[in-house]
Amino acid sequence: MKTRIQSVIGNAVASIQPPGELWRTRARAHLDELTKPRGSLGMLEDIAAQIMAIRCGASSDLRKAVYIFAADHGIAAEGVSAYPSEVTRQMVNNFLANGAAINVLARLHHVKLTIVDIGVDADFDSLDGLLNHKVRKGTRNMLREAAMSKEELAQALSIGISLAAQAKARNETLLAVGEMGIGNTTAAAAITAILTGLRPSLVTGKGTGLSASAVEHKQRVIETVLQKHFGDFGSDTSADPLEVLRRIGGLEIAAMTGFILGAAQHHLPVVIDGFISTAAAAIAFAIAPQVRGYLFSGHQSEEPGHRVLLEYIGVKPILSLNMRLGEGTGAVLAMPIIESAMHLYNEMATFASSGVSEAKN
Amino acid sequence: MKTRIQSVIGNAVASIQPPGELWRTRARAHLDELTKPRGSLGMLEDIAAQIMAIRCGASSDLRKAVYIFAADHGIAAEGVSAYPSEVTRQMVNNFLANGAAINVLARLHHVKLTIVDIGVDADFDSLDGLLNHKVRKGTRNMLREAAMSKEELAQALSIGISLAAQAKARNETLLAVGEMGIGNTTAAAAITAILTGLRPSLVTGKGTGLSASAVEHKQRVIETVLQKHFGDFGSDTSADPLEVLRRIGGLEIAAMTGFILGAAQHHLPVVIDGFISTAAAAIAFAIAPQVRGYLFSGHQSEEPGHRVLLEYIGVKPILSLNMRLGEGTGAVLAMPIIESAMHLYNEMATFASSGVSEAKN
Repeated sequence: MKTRIQSVIGNAVASIQPPGELWRTRARAHLDELTKPRGSLGMLEDIAAQIMAIRCGASSDLRKAVYIFAADHGIAAEGVSAYPSEVTRQMVNNFLANGAAINVLARLHHVKLTIVDIGVDADFDSLDGLLNHKVRKGTRNMLREAAMSKEELAQALSIGISLAAQAKARNETLLAVGEMGIGNTTAAAAITAILTGLRPSLVTGKGTGLSASAVEHKQRVIETVLQKHFGDFGSDTSADPLEVLRRIGGLEIAAMTGFILGAAQHHLPVVIDGFISTAAAAIAFAIAPQVRGYLFSGHQSEEPGHRVLLEYIGVKPILSLNMRLGEGTGAVLAMPIIESAMHLYNEMATFASSGVSEAKN
Repeated sequence: MKTRIQSVIGNAVASIQPPGELWRTRARAHLDELTKPRGSLGMLEDIAAQIMAIRCGASSDLRKAVYIFAADHGIAAEGVSAYPSEVTRQMVNNFLANGAAINVLARLHHVKLTIVDIGVDADFDSLDGLLNHKVRKGTRNMLREAAMSKEELAQALSIGISLAAQAKARNETLLAVGEMGIGNTTAAAAITAILTGLRPSLVTGKGTGLSASAVEHKQRVIETVLQKHFGDFGSDTSADPLEVLRRIGGLEIAAMTGFILGAAQHHLPVVIDGFISTAAAAIAFAIAPQVRGYLFSGHQSEEPGHRVLLEYIGVKPILSLNMRLGEGTGAVLAMPIIESAMHLYNEMATFASSGVSEAKN
């Protein structure tokens, strides 16, 4: 009998095909005809070819959208963040009032912004501009018990998958994911340690700004969590990624995992942001490795575990600006680069049309 | 008696003040009030603070402009490029027909594009859209003689300085420089070797796409040039940078040097592009180290000497996309990042105005 979780993600996972290599090859051939030395646009050429492969040859202008998933974490009670849990709610209100970094960047770069409450530990006065998909008011404290029940995990995954389908229906063609959730670098670090087999000390960072001693405390909390849920740490990197997600959380990571699977199912490129959204991508990749072809890494953040996860998935960051904010900011900042790649692809003259000589050799 | 060159650049050099540290400090204080963990916008915060320091506290929207300087190089006769010299003229025509990469990027990112003929070895049919400041039809072959006379160098520097003054008069507030010139990575590599004392083999790359054996030939040409003009190579890194520029060329590098000095004189931030424009910046820096505060490095290119020059000047590239095209493309691609930094600076809510809690520690 299929579990509830399998019935939620099974269809998406089964439908994900790798991007079309034929389209990528054709795109490469076109890029070589443009008036520039071959390969001289570097990563922009890789990006354009990947977009063409994902979109099966469609080169029309990209309609950009970013989805921010907000949720609280029971583990925040253990003093793992420089900020109190209330900041999750406060920052959602800041998003709704257009005052946060992601609001500024989305406005400047013409990216439609959607805020999703997937599990904030608060009742909002106004839901204007907020999608209410609250599964639970924050995850349970993973130091004591699993962060989510199977039903809660299934719900969060399902919401992510549905939102990707809705993005497809609205003809959005370049997606980004971001998050807000006090305590969520702790969850991301725990996921990273389990997926990669690296010790928590190698993948735990200062999050929103912990002191060195507070980072050590956070590491010890993560070590205790791993011991509790996965026994002798390091012995089991073959843990079921969905069970890892359920025990560690958070709800926003689960929703982003579903969203990424859904985006790949619908042939939509999706730009991941920092450490937390990359943890979601890593879970999606562990479930369905063919999602990799749909992923762009917006940037390399300051969190030490982020680089580890990007290598685990096998994606190269577009930007590297020492950012560590989340909210989808690094993903949206990379969108003008992706858009530039496609405009170059579409609008540059060819050697044949312009009368420019090709290389001698 | 002042030389003609000194009388051309003396005023600019004498007027360059470092950006205002008081404005930078005030900008940092403002950034710390915005609703994000301190420092979490990473390099974007450095960029915003630098822009505020350069502009003495003016935070109004940036008016973006890119100047492309085109010229030919006598050294191209020695087979140092994968493309024939005619490509300089052909690419200028491509710029004028809006078919090149820089046209696409300037249009997409709303950057005013100016093409300057400072020394192309051709007569153009139409000068529509082209600023004709031709000093000479290409430099002399530096393997045989100095690339420029003193008068030619003075002219090229002077044109760059004037164009920066005109940019100021037109109220352009964020400048970029780029170039087109077959053979000019050879000149940039020679300049790099002289300024840094590194052997040509460490700073010579494949340019537009040389084979490994052709790169070796290019290195040997550069070694011979350095031996001829500067004697025993490595012994004299204290060579007069203007004399280095005069002997090596090119006219576009000299004009960009003047442009950068002029931009700094007028408190205008200037984004440098790849290896060649960075060679111009390095000469400007060698003449007037205080220009550093006005420079942004748009990107780190694939040319091995580029990293060396960026370290020599002491600027950190914004992007690193394995590009090696020139034309100002890497500089213009970085402009949306710089613009993002300023919009964040201007538009984000503060902790006080938004009711978001600050960090606990």
